[in-house]
Amino acid sequence: MSDGGAVGANPNLTWHAGVVGRVDRERLLGQRGGVVWLTGLSGSGKSTVARAVEERLVRAGRLAYVLDGDNVRHGLNSDLGFSPAERQENIRRIGEVAALMADAGLIVITAFISPYRADRERARSACRGSAFVEVYLDAPLAVCETRDPKGLYRRARQGEIAEFTGVSAPYEPPAAPELCLPTGRLSVTESAEAVIDCLRRQGVLGTSTAGR
Amino acid sequence: MSDGGAVGANPNLTWHAGVVGRVDRERLLGQRGGVVWLTGLSGSGKSTVARAVEERLVRAGRLAYVLDGDNVRHGLNSDLGFSPAERQENIRRIGEVAALMADAGLIVITAFISPYRADRERARSACRGSAFVEVYLDAPLAVCETRDPKGLYRRARQGEIAEFTGVSAPYEPPAAPELCLPTGRLSVTESAEAVIDCLRRQGVLGTSTAGR
Repeated sequence: MSDGGAVGANPNLTWHAGVVGRVDRERLLGQRGGVVWLTGLSGSGKSTVARAVEERLVRAGRLAYVLDGDNVRHGLNSDLGFSPAERQENIRRIGEVAALMADAGLIVITAFISPYRADRERARSACRGSAFVEVYLDAPLAVCETRDPKGLYRRARQGEIAEFTGVSAPYEPPAAPELCLPTGRLSVTESAEAVIDCLRRQGVLGTSTAGR
Repeated sequence: MSDGGAVGANPNLTWHAGVVGRVDRERLLGQRGGVVWLTGLSGSGKSTVARAVEERLVRAGRLAYVLDGDNVRHGLNSDLGFSPAERQENIRRIGEVAALMADAGLIVITAFISPYRADRERARSACRGSAFVEVYLDAPLAVCETRDPKGLYRRARQGEIAEFTGVSAPYEPPAAPELCLPTGRLSVTESAEAVIDCLRRQGVLGTSTAGR
């Protein structure tokens, strides 16, 4: 980095040499940046699994962060409604934010229904350069509907929610996810450990012993 | 965290206890999450200072990341043009992404002209809960225009770029920035060290000796 002139005097000089990049941050953290993209019906356990994976990783000294409706829909995407175009834009932005955070070295875990294959593939493309682990939470609709923690299926069946995935809008299962979790029969622990095993196989957890 | 039932069987149980949060990540990193919001005219040195601060922090073992036009305009905000409304939306999203990254424990350095006070105040509000350090790169227009590394002032003067800040659109200086850098006379090193001193005073760098 040039140090001779005033700031910006010669940006071409100052931008080269010393600038740190993703490798430096990954070395600092002892992990690779990556994205765990959870997809599945409402009630399939995305948020629960996401939080369990995050907890295990952070307790093991890994830097992990969950993106979900709570922190995205009220902030970054608070301008978006639920039309098809807005749902697509919602997922597009989440993919781009996950890519930035993974570039910064984090293991990002996203928990969104993300029912369309094309939208998920676009997220994968945005995250090029980072590990991208698509995880399909494959619980039968009947199981998800029985859980119905927020009463959404009930409201969808009563026609109060339009285009509800699994009821009145399609869900396109991943064709070749990195991991498939039958969350109708797996416990939270089993599911979280399967995700972490997958991250280890993908080399995201580096060579240290943390995360085991 | 409940471990008895299948995933999502009782989300109310699984969300409580063991879930990690910002304090756990900050302990892991030995720093507080925060945002360094650089603002100033084109050519005032925002990108150069941002990269210099990032480099110093990462080399000192801090996790820092620059958000600038290179990684935001081509990805997250690639759908936005340059109308007043789109410029405002550009800054709004950047503020929200910076807030998410700071919540994840990072020191985020943003490098955007961000000429309007109201837009910067909105970013500060979005980052509530994290340190927010507004840094005004106060270089005289004449100096910035002389540097003109990308030839933008020349094109603006020739009428090829509409509403160019400082030429044909206003720049509203911060009323009470955490730091003011007269980058017309400071070197890159002096500027970067002033930012890092400011972060230290704000408690962002924690109690370790790194970053000194």
